[in-house]
Amino acid sequence: MNEHIPTPSVHRLSAYLRQLEVLAAAHTDHVSSSELAASMNFGAATVRRDLALFGQFGRRGVGYDVFELIGALRAILGTQRQWPVVVIGAGELSHALLRYNGFRMRGFDLLAAFDIDPEKIGRQLGNVTVQPLEELEAVIERTGARVAILAVPAQAAQALADRLVAAGIEGLLNFSTPALVTPPGVHVSHADITAHLEELTFHLSETRP
Amino acid sequence: MNEHIPTPSVHRLSAYLRQLEVLAAAHTDHVSSSELAASMNFGAATVRRDLALFGQFGRRGVGYDVFELIGALRAILGTQRQWPVVVIGAGELSHALLRYNGFRMRGFDLLAAFDIDPEKIGRQLGNVTVQPLEELEAVIERTGARVAILAVPAQAAQALADRLVAAGIEGLLNFSTPALVTPPGVHVSHADITAHLEELTFHLSETRP
Repeated sequence: MNEHIPTPSVHRLSAYLRQLEVLAAAHTDHVSSSELAASMNFGAATVRRDLALFGQFGRRGVGYDVFELIGALRAILGTQRQWPVVVIGAGELSHALLRYNGFRMRGFDLLAAFDIDPEKIGRQLGNVTVQPLEELEAVIERTGARVAILAVPAQAAQALADRLVAAGIEGLLNFSTPALVTPPGVHVSHADITAHLEELTFHLSETRP
Repeated sequence: MNEHIPTPSVHRLSAYLRQLEVLAAAHTDHVSSSELAASMNFGAATVRRDLALFGQFGRRGVGYDVFELIGALRAILGTQRQWPVVVIGAGELSHALLRYNGFRMRGFDLLAAFDIDPEKIGRQLGNVTVQPLEELEAVIERTGARVAILAVPAQAAQALADRLVAAGIEGLLNFSTPALVTPPGVHVSHADITAHLEELTFHLSETRP
């Protein structure tokens, strides 16, 4: 079934979860779909429709139980458990990701980082020590990692993606290049921070040229 | 017109541009829509349809001129010029963004960073020195910045967004929280790296439970 859910809906589930985490931290125990929607600049109908895809949540007049909905969204997104994640490339971005505490509490354990640069190998990034790329397959096998973060220069990305897939990786968060070809059954999510900036200037450039 | 283009199409324009940059670096001067599409796991019809929204590109049998299409996409996305960008929050992520060279060559000049933490103020991140938040309005006024990157803890995000909008910011790349409310005419692009990981585990968690 998950194959047929459009990516924007999945990303909205993540957005609801983020906002519910904020509410939970503020000890708010119930929220209505219209409150949740308004706080995020979404329509209430969008929130209700997205959640209805996965079951029956909330009660009329009471709204959603914040902690219950957090648990339900985590179950839907698969993050009620910890996922071991390997990081390929030990540049500045990987550095930032490995030092960010939010991943672990959201179900992602970034437990290893790899690079080919002898200057980077052996460095401590957050809790992990950068390892040589030769160790990649052994670490994936030992940890059972199915998810990898690819943060390498564009020209190295395809060969590394092939190697990750051969080693058993099925989900790839790709910061490198949009031009990655992977076999069916491997999921790639492409994160491009420049594209977010371009989305803004796309809109701004015609309003005041 | 740009108001009516869906965000996924805008993000695909960025993806085409990234891939064309790779081709240009490899001295490839022409590419067909099917080659461009295949290298990115898109359909050729998608590529042709997206580009047709903005004009007539490419010639039958010859394909797209890589450098011409790069220029056209930059003009569409507004990045044929440099945009001054201010960065709010001087944590690890901002650190990585400020040290990344790719933004400048793509039209984004991250020229100032701000924080409230006295330990961070005065630090050198890439080419900029972290300034106290009190300087924010003066720097926005002096540089004419219309775009800001918000990379602060969730609980500080709304007040800072309000302040940025009051100071003249019209485009906000938001790493902080999905729950940002901004007035009409202000564009917000929400980047959530966790959501990309959750997109992967959403798909993986039902294939092998």
